[in-house]
Amino acid sequence: MRMQQRIETALELHFSHIQAMSAPPRLLSAMRHAVFPGGARIRPQLCLAVAQACGDDAPALSDAAAVSIELMHCASLVHDDMPCFDDADTRRGQITVHKQYGEPLALLTGDGLIVMAYQVLARAGRMQPTRLVDLISTVSDGVGAPDGIVAGQAWECETKVALSQYQRAKTGALFVAATCAGAQAAGVDPAPWRALGEALGEAYQVADDIRDVMGQAESLGKPVGQDAQHGRPSAAADLGLAGALSYFQKLMDAAVESVPACAHRQAMQQLVRMESERLVPQSAYEHIQRHVAVSGLKANA
Amino acid sequence: MRMQQRIETALELHFSHIQAMSAPPRLLSAMRHAVFPGGARIRPQLCLAVAQACGDDAPALSDAAAVSIELMHCASLVHDDMPCFDDADTRRGQITVHKQYGEPLALLTGDGLIVMAYQVLARAGRMQPTRLVDLISTVSDGVGAPDGIVAGQAWECETKVALSQYQRAKTGALFVAATCAGAQAAGVDPAPWRALGEALGEAYQVADDIRDVMGQAESLGKPVGQDAQHGRPSAAADLGLAGALSYFQKLMDAAVESVPACAHRQAMQQLVRMESERLVPQSAYEHIQRHVAVSGLKANA
Repeated sequence: MRMQQRIETALELHFSHIQAMSAPPRLLSAMRHAVFPGGARIRPQLCLAVAQACGDDAPALSDAAAVSIELMHCASLVHDDMPCFDDADTRRGQITVHKQYGEPLALLTGDGLIVMAYQVLARAGRMQPTRLVDLISTVSDGVGAPDGIVAGQAWECETKVALSQYQRAKTGALFVAATCAGAQAAGVDPAPWRALGEALGEAYQVADDIRDVMGQAESLGKPVGQDAQHGRPSAAADLGLAGALSYFQKLMDAAVESVPACAHRQAMQQLVRMESERLVPQSAYEHIQRHVAVSGLKANA
Repeated sequence: MRMQQRIETALELHFSHIQAMSAPPRLLSAMRHAVFPGGARIRPQLCLAVAQACGDDAPALSDAAAVSIELMHCASLVHDDMPCFDDADTRRGQITVHKQYGEPLALLTGDGLIVMAYQVLARAGRMQPTRLVDLISTVSDGVGAPDGIVAGQAWECETKVALSQYQRAKTGALFVAATCAGAQAAGVDPAPWRALGEALGEAYQVADDIRDVMGQAESLGKPVGQDAQHGRPSAAADLGLAGALSYFQKLMDAAVESVPACAHRQAMQQLVRMESERLVPQSAYEHIQRHVAVSGLKANA
């Protein structure tokens, strides 16, 4: 089964467990709205790819790890889109949860998805309790205090922000959780897989900053210019577009190099290279090179 | 160690794990604000009492179960108090989290506390992975979809509400999780302890409805008259104050009877009786009897 299909099937399976019962219909509908249709599903794909590279000897647990990471990501998007944060109207090209269902249900949808992530792990981990303990810790560390994505978002509420700590927590933490959980689901030591998650997480954040500035609302599926509007730290603002692009490339090279020795090292590296092209296509480089050239001409005029 | 002290010590211990590290200071401060000082800590006390009745052979795990239940409860209070729900200014006699720290941090505080509940379980359950799997399921079922407190709150966003289902989920679910988790932490089958959680949960909701109508803001630590103001279902509204009191008494009697055979059955029953007096003191009965008598006189005048 192709990886994307495997993730959608696993997500549907775990939704069926709560749908079969007596949940409030609008809550369920809002939770589905937050998860389907998905974006690139980059985090669960990364998690599954690492699990496969590590042997994937417990596929249901690998699926559950990938699903739990994606549910945490979706929960954070729902809460981040709410009026007290970004007040966004669209996400993944469709209307946001709070715009469609109201703020109370959006708040509960995020909470429900966080809990569902653990329900998914507990259900799949019954036969592998020791791996489950590790997975619960890894996923929790990627989300909660002190260094997870919730903490990352909370750095925006501080007057003094350590930029690298903010970026590592806001985006990197869940990428690290994705690679480490993939290894742990397959019963493998996660430590050598940390660096891949760290490099990809930072690269993803830089790519997001670049696209936010370049105004590619269509490919982002959400409003652009948000970083400047909310005064958030941004690599594109700090380094300029050309500098940010060069930094992105450096991070992706580091990601490729970091892939540890395993059965499918080359395939994994190929996957990272494809992700690099998806995140910042060649056309963006050309666009920016033209932009830099035009700026140079204007400066010399 | 007295039970209340044991709970506060365990809460402090688990906060020390995230405080020692590099979390955003205001997020940590807001999370502490949501948890300390506590209310009656009725759910974690119930959890610990059941664990003790079942032998309490893994005290650190019992503590973690109690702490995780309390953190879930605190998270739900923070989110329920936010402007899109109750818009409450006070809770447990102090200013609410969103009033003190702003809405963004209140939202993140709730999220952070939910995740922390699982971090606490994972930390304590490393030596007892099989019990941990059960605890994760039990606590999650008490909070998430389809029947946990998040679902209970979400029933308020439906046009058609099944009243008993709403009340069971909104309050009962976490009481059931508390009794079942107490048993599971001690390695005991939780099924016989369900009924106690169900009866106490419903009794607690009825007592809350009664106090909301009687206007005991001081003993509630939060604004009164909220049920009528928000058009929420209420036993006091449905049955009248005298009827609600009688129903409360019936539920507490059922709770006492439901305590399964165990080493400390009588002590457990005594605890339930004390809780009954704390929830609705004798003075409330006398107050309502006077009220009924005066209403009778007026009706006959």
